[in-house]
Amino acid sequence: MTDHPMPLDGSVTPRFAGHATFMRLPIFTSADELDIPIIGVPFDGATTNRPGARLGPREIRAQSSLTRLYNPVMDVSPYKLARVGDMGDVGVNPVDVIDTIERIRQFFAQFSGRAVRPLAVGGDHMISYPVLKGLAPRRPLGMVHFDAHSDTGDTYYGTARYTHGTPFRRAIEDGLLAPERIIQIGIRGSLYAADDMEWALASGIRIITMEEVRRMGPAAVLAEVQHRLAGEPAYLSFDIDCLEPAFAPGTGTPEIGGFTVPEVLTLLRGLKGLDLAGADLVEVSPPLDNGSLTSLTAANLLFEIVCLLAVAQCSSRE
Amino acid sequence: MTDHPMPLDGSVTPRFAGHATFMRLPIFTSADELDIPIIGVPFDGATTNRPGARLGPREIRAQSSLTRLYNPVMDVSPYKLARVGDMGDVGVNPVDVIDTIERIRQFFAQFSGRAVRPLAVGGDHMISYPVLKGLAPRRPLGMVHFDAHSDTGDTYYGTARYTHGTPFRRAIEDGLLAPERIIQIGIRGSLYAADDMEWALASGIRIITMEEVRRMGPAAVLAEVQHRLAGEPAYLSFDIDCLEPAFAPGTGTPEIGGFTVPEVLTLLRGLKGLDLAGADLVEVSPPLDNGSLTSLTAANLLFEIVCLLAVAQCSSRE
Amino acid sequence: MTDHPMPLDGSVTPRFAGHATFMRLPIFTSADELDIPIIGVPFDGATTNRPGARLGPREIRAQSSLTRLYNPVMDVSPYKLARVGDMGDVGVNPVDVIDTIERIRQFFAQFSGRAVRPLAVGGDHMISYPVLKGLAPRRPLGMVHFDAHSDTGDTYYGTARYTHGTPFRRAIEDGLLAPERIIQIGIRGSLYAADDMEWALASGIRIITMEEVRRMGPAAVLAEVQHRLAGEPAYLSFDIDCLEPAFAPGTGTPEIGGFTVPEVLTLLRGLKGLDLAGADLVEVSPPLDNGSLTSLTAANLLFEIVCLLAVAQCSSRE
Amino acid sequence: MTDHPMPLDGSVTPRFAGHATFMRLPIFTSADELDIPIIGVPFDGATTNRPGARLGPREIRAQSSLTRLYNPVMDVSPYKLARVGDMGDVGVNPVDVIDTIERIRQFFAQFSGRAVRPLAVGGDHMISYPVLKGLAPRRPLGMVHFDAHSDTGDTYYGTARYTHGTPFRRAIEDGLLAPERIIQIGIRGSLYAADDMEWALASGIRIITMEEVRRMGPAAVLAEVQHRLAGEPAYLSFDIDCLEPAFAPGTGTPEIGGFTVPEVLTLLRGLKGLDLAGADLVEVSPPLDNGSLTSLTAANLLFEIVCLLAVAQCSSRE
Amino acid sequence: MTDHPMPLDGSVTPRFAGHATFMRLPIFTSADELDIPIIGVPFDGATTNRPGARLGPREIRAQSSLTRLYNPVMDVSPYKLARVGDMGDVGVNPVDVIDTIERIRQFFAQFSGRAVRPLAVGGDHMISYPVLKGLAPRRPLGMVHFDAHSDTGDTYYGTARYTHGTPFRRAIEDGLLAPERIIQIGIRGSLYAADDMEWALASGIRIITMEEVRRMGPAAVLAEVQHRLAGEPAYLSFDIDCLEPAFAPGTGTPEIGGFTVPEVLTLLRGLKGLDLAGADLVEVSPPLDNGSLTSLTAANLLFEIVCLLAVAQCSSRE
Amino acid sequence: MTDHPMPLDGSVTPRFAGHATFMRLPIFTSADELDIPIIGVPFDGATTNRPGARLGPREIRAQSSLTRLYNPVMDVSPYKLARVGDMGDVGVNPVDVIDTIERIRQFFAQFSGRAVRPLAVGGDHMISYPVLKGLAPRRPLGMVHFDAHSDTGDTYYGTARYTHGTPFRRAIEDGLLAPERIIQIGIRGSLYAADDMEWALASGIRIITMEEVRRMGPAAVLAEVQHRLAGEPAYLSFDIDCLEPAFAPGTGTPEIGGFTVPEVLTLLRGLKGLDLAGADLVEVSPPLDNGSLTSLTAANLLFEIVCLLAVAQCSSRE
Repeated sequence: MTDHPMPLDGSVTPRFAGHATFMRLPIFTSADELDIPIIGVPFDGATTNRPGARLGPREIRAQSSLTRLYNPVMDVSPYKLARVGDMGDVGVNPVDVIDTIERIRQFFAQFSGRAVRPLAVGGDHMISYPVLKGLAPRRPLGMVHFDAHSDTGDTYYGTARYTHGTPFRRAIEDGLLAPERIIQIGIRGSLYAADDMEWALASGIRIITMEEVRRMGPAAVLAEVQHRLAGEPAYLSFDIDCLEPAFAPGTGTPEIGGFTVPEVLTLLRGLKGLDLAGADLVEVSPPLDNGSLTSLTAANLLFEIVCLLAVAQCSSRE
Repeated sequence: MTDHPMPLDGSVTPRFAGHATFMRLPIFTSADELDIPIIGVPFDGATTNRPGARLGPREIRAQSSLTRLYNPVMDVSPYKLARVGDMGDVGVNPVDVIDTIERIRQFFAQFSGRAVRPLAVGGDHMISYPVLKGLAPRRPLGMVHFDAHSDTGDTYYGTARYTHGTPFRRAIEDGLLAPERIIQIGIRGSLYAADDMEWALASGIRIITMEEVRRMGPAAVLAEVQHRLAGEPAYLSFDIDCLEPAFAPGTGTPEIGGFTVPEVLTLLRGLKGLDLAGADLVEVSPPLDNGSLTSLTAANLLFEIVCLLAVAQCSSRE
Repeated sequence: MTDHPMPLDGSVTPRFAGHATFMRLPIFTSADELDIPIIGVPFDGATTNRPGARLGPREIRAQSSLTRLYNPVMDVSPYKLARVGDMGDVGVNPVDVIDTIERIRQFFAQFSGRAVRPLAVGGDHMISYPVLKGLAPRRPLGMVHFDAHSDTGDTYYGTARYTHGTPFRRAIEDGLLAPERIIQIGIRGSLYAADDMEWALASGIRIITMEEVRRMGPAAVLAEVQHRLAGEPAYLSFDIDCLEPAFAPGTGTPEIGGFTVPEVLTLLRGLKGLDLAGADLVEVSPPLDNGSLTSLTAANLLFEIVCLLAVAQCSSRE
Repeated sequence: MTDHPMPLDGSVTPRFAGHATFMRLPIFTSADELDIPIIGVPFDGATTNRPGARLGPREIRAQSSLTRLYNPVMDVSPYKLARVGDMGDVGVNPVDVIDTIERIRQFFAQFSGRAVRPLAVGGDHMISYPVLKGLAPRRPLGMVHFDAHSDTGDTYYGTARYTHGTPFRRAIEDGLLAPERIIQIGIRGSLYAADDMEWALASGIRIITMEEVRRMGPAAVLAEVQHRLAGEPAYLSFDIDCLEPAFAPGTGTPEIGGFTVPEVLTLLRGLKGLDLAGADLVEVSPPLDNGSLTSLTAANLLFEIVCLLAVAQCSSRE
Repeated sequence: MTDHPMPLDGSVTPRFAGHATFMRLPIFTSADELDIPIIGVPFDGATTNRPGARLGPREIRAQSSLTRLYNPVMDVSPYKLARVGDMGDVGVNPVDVIDTIERIRQFFAQFSGRAVRPLAVGGDHMISYPVLKGLAPRRPLGMVHFDAHSDTGDTYYGTARYTHGTPFRRAIEDGLLAPERIIQIGIRGSLYAADDMEWALASGIRIITMEEVRRMGPAAVLAEVQHRLAGEPAYLSFDIDCLEPAFAPGTGTPEIGGFTVPEVLTLLRGLKGLDLAGADLVEVSPPLDNGSLTSLTAANLLFEIVCLLAVAQCSSRE
Repeated sequence: MTDHPMPLDGSVTPRFAGHATFMRLPIFTSADELDIPIIGVPFDGATTNRPGARLGPREIRAQSSLTRLYNPVMDVSPYKLARVGDMGDVGVNPVDVIDTIERIRQFFAQFSGRAVRPLAVGGDHMISYPVLKGLAPRRPLGMVHFDAHSDTGDTYYGTARYTHGTPFRRAIEDGLLAPERIIQIGIRGSLYAADDMEWALASGIRIITMEEVRRMGPAAVLAEVQHRLAGEPAYLSFDIDCLEPAFAPGTGTPEIGGFTVPEVLTLLRGLKGLDLAGADLVEVSPPLDNGSLTSLTAANLLFEIVCLLAVAQCSSRE
């Protein structure tokens, strides 16, 4: 286990120094030696609202220098449990959604069928679709999805089928996700119409709105997650706009009434033990941020997700 | 109902585009076709502390583009229930409080005695006084008042009777509000003296301090609101500084220990069914904001208030 | 002339108040009563670098409230000379460049062949191409082009022909611009290769680099503009990144060594008398700005351009 | 001379530490021991545009810690030449222009007829009027006035005679300033009408517009100042908006095309030797600033003005 | 009691005006007439992470103008109970930790053995060590310590024993604090290793992690504080990074999952009655702040601490 | 030459993407394959004023993504002329100046006596001293030094000999620099005393103050540089505070009256052909910046310096 990649040592190079990689981990160009490759997907060309998420990976890397090695609440040392590394950014085409979907798919296809659990850092939420497409799971995955929005819309502006509001409709259509094993947590905000959620609900997705989360309490929510996923492999998709804007102002489509950071930490940490096949964290837009608050928060949540993936990876080996 | 004014369609003009009107609603120069006119009152000349609220209406309009059409928690489609429109800004005199009081009063006098429920967007809190004066209710209104401060002071700097700290003393003196039907929620912060609240309490106002709100819980607070207002018409005055500064830094006189946004949403939504004769949202100061966090939050709360007014308007028709 | 649309009167409604329209002018839905329609084009989906220009029209409108009615240096009262109005924003498709090109083209096609001189406010620089395409001039136009970049590139990312780095190559290929009557002023910055400008120079475009501008002085530059355009109708394209970043930090691809604002004012004002058939101002990205400095500057430069167009319109009537 | 008040010693207390007073000078409650009292006038209630200048004195004090003791370009050690101190702020009434005018007048009346040369730090430009009124010069003073605006308007909003756009019209009417010995430098920007300057010019004021400044060059401008003031006592009024917005974004009514800081330094330093009876620096609005750039610049210019006043004070003793 | 120093009267000088001293209190150069001297310690040279806390005292002074005279929740008028004043800043050496430790120690030694309860405002957390050293309590003090970090590390970078991560290890080694009477509240965040807390726990310190705080509830936490301190004199050390970053972004080593401001207010106010011998508030870094949110919050918490110290001082007299 | 390290290709990975290295160059851990190693020196512990320069290397790396491959004004393709790479950051000790001096010295000692021309990116200006000490030139180097301050002070706070105000006094004392071949350009700002520059002048340093630069013009300044350095190897030290604050607000000790960016570009480019043995760029403090303006400008100036070093390296080979 001593040969695992480790973050740059803060007692030698101070935490504000050195190249900004995810968690100060070494850079890898191949996943051959990795269990958990972390990959930036700097694309926001599918954003229907305010842009800037293409700058997310870079700033999240910078802020992630502040994370350390051991998670005392989960009691997990992720870099001891698994080989984690920074695999750089997917080379996207910022002016072409369709071309970019193919580029992302190809990048993530290298992980398909292998015992790696990739972690994608967006970018806007559209990227979840080509990430899943690249992973090409043998059977549809379940999903735990933190978000203010269901992202199961169909078409925008008459013709646009691939936007940050549609990734999960596309993924379900392609058989990448099993709707009855999808649970969406924190959905809220005004809607275009009273039936906006109809397709999602009809397809079998379980939507726990923010109000329901608060009524149920975290334990009941987590119990339902376990129940719904039923031990099957699942994908974790974390949209930073699930947070109340005061905690995450740097995002394109903020909605008030969201999670506090402590609330979301409790829920995330409660996923320990799930068989997470991969994950993403999306919609951090540094140009819209107040200072680096959102990126700092995202970087710390990313560390929690790394811990979840490391536990999953470790469990699968046993 | 199909002829109601509707917000600009986000599927045709993206939400970040188009002229910034309240909620992307059409602009009206008369209230003849409206149930709920929304009016900017860009005046901060009665501010005793840090200024900037004169710039509130413009930035709140800009941020309100992010609200949509249906409120799923209240189950209300406000623009279907009522005719809502943007009536522009009152032409204030930024260097003269007395002159401005008269200008605001005249503007709001057009609504007096009519079945409209105007919504004023400040500006500093002094504007509540001339708004009420213009509405000239036949008998004193009740009031639900969210604020860190009671705003029932008497005189500042020896001679100043019209400041953002005195509107409700003036309104009570003028018989516009009935103190025994006023309930102030969230009052807190250090005071000039232990007896600062004496006049307000003696006049019969019910002050629920922030500490009391937290002890009572939202249901008890809402029950007391219902009890106190007793089905009578009431005015809703919402000072953004009722929120904790982290949620609303862009205000002139912030006080720590305030509401979170989810807390205030629960209380606001619990007012559904009140016979609100009008409302205001005040003290948003964009130059003091962090990014547009406060204006964004204010715009979303404004949408909630529109829903409350629309329900009230609709009920009164039945 | 007394029936011309006029900006909202600052002595009635203070300049910080009222709806934010370009120059506080009335809103028009048709150009029938206008000589100079000002149109927002809130699209940045063709940006290869940092985004945000889609938010340009809204913030430039807000800042343009600070302009007044008379230009003492040019001795021009533009709103007396011409009917100027705000025609709102083109309804773009933020996730699809090709679809948006067609939408912009259609919008501007309404002005084709008519005696109007539209002024487009971007958005990224790609929009110049569909604006010109919509105007569909009978014979190729000349162009005065202020920019740090030549924007005559061919293809990005292998396949992308329509980006903010290629509009003028496309416009020349389509016969919308006559390269020998194009003059580009202020070009500078590091290049990808020594021959980056080869196509532009070979096509006959005159490039006056920033260094050459400083060696020549403004009078010689303006003389060359006059000489090159030779009295023919021309388009004015103004990219805000022609300015030194300290003067315009809010832009996606800043280059140091640029114009100061006084320098650019001298050159712009020196264009008085040109037969400008239309104009645009592009690449203002409010999320990347320091405060509103760039939008404020852009709004004031927009007023100068309105003056140029008004003089051109007026001259053509005589 | 060794008993002069001196700034806090930077070699004992670092420059970022200690109470923020003007130039780190001691605080005085009376001018008895001072030649040059510096006084904050934190009032912006006469601002017709964007507010915030009431916060100017505090932030300029904070930034002035960065100035030192010796001016090498002027070859002046001001604190050796004169007794300079911080006399705190005038107790203004933020909601009442008329009351505040009287409060400022009374404060400055203590200096009337005495051999002190007060330096007022605004606040908005209206304060110049009551400062001059308080000083009550035996015969009308001359004035060197740096500004983008002439500030000789008459009435705003129908009735408002005392605004930041009218101080010098009021001062001339009251016989406090002699218009033929007033020189305004840097005037520019769009106007409400072609005849906006008529009253000023007719009264005999010399207006050197920004364009004229650039044509004449600094030496000719300074020669004209000397010629016009003709050795008579004069007041110096410095509005920070004389600077180009990139150099001073933190001001309520910015105008592009203004001075660079080096340009204004040359002109200010060229005033050495004038018999300045007092001075002010106004219109710094920290909430509108980018960082503290404007306050930092203002603090450094204030040091230059202190040097000018110290030389004047010293000369008068000889 | 009428001769107590009082804050500048807000009804004479508005709260945004006047020199920025702590709570607008008078400045003192000696503690002879004070019970509670407030002292700035503008040093951040022991910071291992992001700097800026040297600028804390200045900005906290500026923001503290917003506090008033009476604490209604505690029912305490601190300036009536005790003589409180601003004693300026310790003259630190920003480039030398060891020299600065001696300078701070010497400054605080003036209070040793006297009936004063000093309140230090940092600066980074290292300053707690020389403050305690200067106070030189006859027997080791207890301590209530709010922080995300235990700050009981030993050595950094091989040789550095005096950093903001080690003050309490040094203080215990020197017999200034009694570890069994130390209670640390809110500790959280990722660690360098699973045994990071070993020394602290072994020495007898009670660490209540953030998770434990939330499980226990405030009443139980406060009960344990009382139990552990057992009526003995104690020091209060408040690191602003105990707060969730959204509430206090302006700090060098933020950790997510922290206190909300209302939570921390409940705990702080619950300390009323403790025999606090002194206190500090540290790690506010204005250059890293969003606006002045962190300094504003810190200033208000400082007022709460002044109330606690005033009650302690008053009780000891009885 | 084809095997030279090249920046990440912008046509494959967009410029905002990928790991932030200097100029998007590959990372090297040894200088064996490099001519021009670029090294971050993230230390600001010798700063006597406002801190933050320790965060400079990281943000300058991020902004340097915007530079390209060819410098058209110099007509230089630096990466073709020389092997340039990013060697990461020196592992500094942020709380100990003396220890850090030794760490930096050791790092740069690897280049001593070898044909490499290192480029250090600070960090505060103290770092120039250990960089030079590490390079240990066989005979004292000349120096071209752009700065507002001479940085030849002796001692601060009684005992501090190693601060950002003393590096060149120390370097001269150690025989690393030859004072008669030092030329300091742009020196300005208020001084502590009239004789502040005495030691520097007496030692033979040529100081061209800002005022003298403007009187002489760039050609004369450059001629004097050539004359003074007389073809001998020289070090280039560039302090970002040589710029006017509007162009570089993000620095600890700004002084007004400085260079514009175009002015400094002319001077820097005029150094082409000098035998530069190494260089540094220092004092960029991102937390004090407005947006990223200062880091962006620094990154672009760094590219110019790389070009100068590449030409020098190439010339030496011929």
